[in-house]
Amino acid sequence: MTPKIVNIIGLENFPLVKAGDDLAKIIVETAAKNNVQIENGDIIVISQKIVSKAEGRVMKISQISPSEEALKLAEKVQRDPKLIELVLKETRRIIKASPEILIVEDKRGLICINAGVDKSNVPRDSYSLLPENPDESARKIKERIAELTGKNVSVVIGDTFSRPFRRGQVEFAIGIAGIKPFKDYRGQRDLYNNLLRVKNVAIVDEIACAAELVMGQAKEAIPVAIIKNLERAETSEKSSIKELAISRQEDLFKETL
Amino acid sequence: MTPKIVNIIGLENFPLVKAGDDLAKIIVETAAKNNVQIENGDIIVISQKIVSKAEGRVMKISQISPSEEALKLAEKVQRDPKLIELVLKETRRIIKASPEILIVEDKRGLICINAGVDKSNVPRDSYSLLPENPDESARKIKERIAELTGKNVSVVIGDTFSRPFRRGQVEFAIGIAGIKPFKDYRGQRDLYNNLLRVKNVAIVDEIACAAELVMGQAKEAIPVAIIKNLERAETSEKSSIKELAISRQEDLFKETL
Repeated sequence: MTPKIVNIIGLENFPLVKAGDDLAKIIVETAAKNNVQIENGDIIVISQKIVSKAEGRVMKISQISPSEEALKLAEKVQRDPKLIELVLKETRRIIKASPEILIVEDKRGLICINAGVDKSNVPRDSYSLLPENPDESARKIKERIAELTGKNVSVVIGDTFSRPFRRGQVEFAIGIAGIKPFKDYRGQRDLYNNLLRVKNVAIVDEIACAAELVMGQAKEAIPVAIIKNLERAETSEKSSIKELAISRQEDLFKETL
Repeated sequence: MTPKIVNIIGLENFPLVKAGDDLAKIIVETAAKNNVQIENGDIIVISQKIVSKAEGRVMKISQISPSEEALKLAEKVQRDPKLIELVLKETRRIIKASPEILIVEDKRGLICINAGVDKSNVPRDSYSLLPENPDESARKIKERIAELTGKNVSVVIGDTFSRPFRRGQVEFAIGIAGIKPFKDYRGQRDLYNNLLRVKNVAIVDEIACAAELVMGQAKEAIPVAIIKNLERAETSEKSSIKELAISRQEDLFKETL
């Protein structure tokens, strides 16, 4: 008997990415140097940080002038006014602003700390912002990989998120192309013929988590993982990460925190 | 150049598990039938449901008599009073009780819907409860696998959780043995020598997610996955899933929902 084996391949020796770089090309070249074939059905998981860098979404701190509003909020949350200036530009709605933390719904609909603006793995004089439209970023990389290799892959852009109720962070998908965000079991039957009424797995978040296992967060320099043989993932040419967003009204966890 | 490759192996043709079964033995035998060697350092991820079944944590509905309190709460949340009777016995604190949902902190410290009591993948006349002490369950399985194979593995018990702010479910670790729950990057430096102050990845949750990619939720009958070559995971002989629990006071997401 042969079992199902999914492979998660972390590409070693990925070069540092700069604004304007052709990220798809770098991925294809680095895969080749790693002796990894890119094949139809592969899922390419990319760390948000290098997508932001390639798209020039890194801001020099010296070039940021905080507004009155940013200065006021910065005092409240006790953070650098220049960080807050960037966060406000990325924010649709402030959810919590305290001296401990600033949580917002960003303009993409993501609920996250500081609208995803941070300093890790960018030059010390800079902040990085999330890609303007991560689905679009994923789609462009997918299409460019098809152009370069002739292969039809899916792309998931992942970022590291804190979450309520549990300590520590996990990886979330923030942009997708070529893959359905869910594996929906609703309406199927289980081993005992019970109807599954609720199970709708956010498979792209699980994929981002699986990829983070080989990526790491510090000096590993493994910002891309290729997942092979994940038969359960379903392709889609028009899916969006926005399908994961839930309104406060619909969120069954409302009023629990 | 050779890349890092983590393999996630879903064991095929896993038999149905009954109360009293020696789960570790079934895992070892099924791995052998799948031609999968169990090796030192492997991480064995096991679906909560089969651990509960082996431990006899499945209750016949006909044998449950709801208390007054259960009847009252069942009316409020519009669910079967017998389900609610079981939930209350597993609950430390009710967090939200509405006609749409019952969210509790269970006696293990997990924040979850219906204290993890459910009907999927158990006989139709029954409800399943979470293992009494999932860390202890994991430890026993780990030790029994060592006895049977001479190999030192880690064990992660996973269950499917809904979460705030995002649609769909993902897998969480609910019991662990032989593995640190976190990969802690705090105090390390990133590629640009920035000090990492916050990054503390809940690696056991990511491991549970990675395993779910091969397990599925319906008729797949793949309740066990073996993860190989995950060098980043750190072993520990005294870790507990309780390290993931966070008090409301410490939870920076408090007052956001």
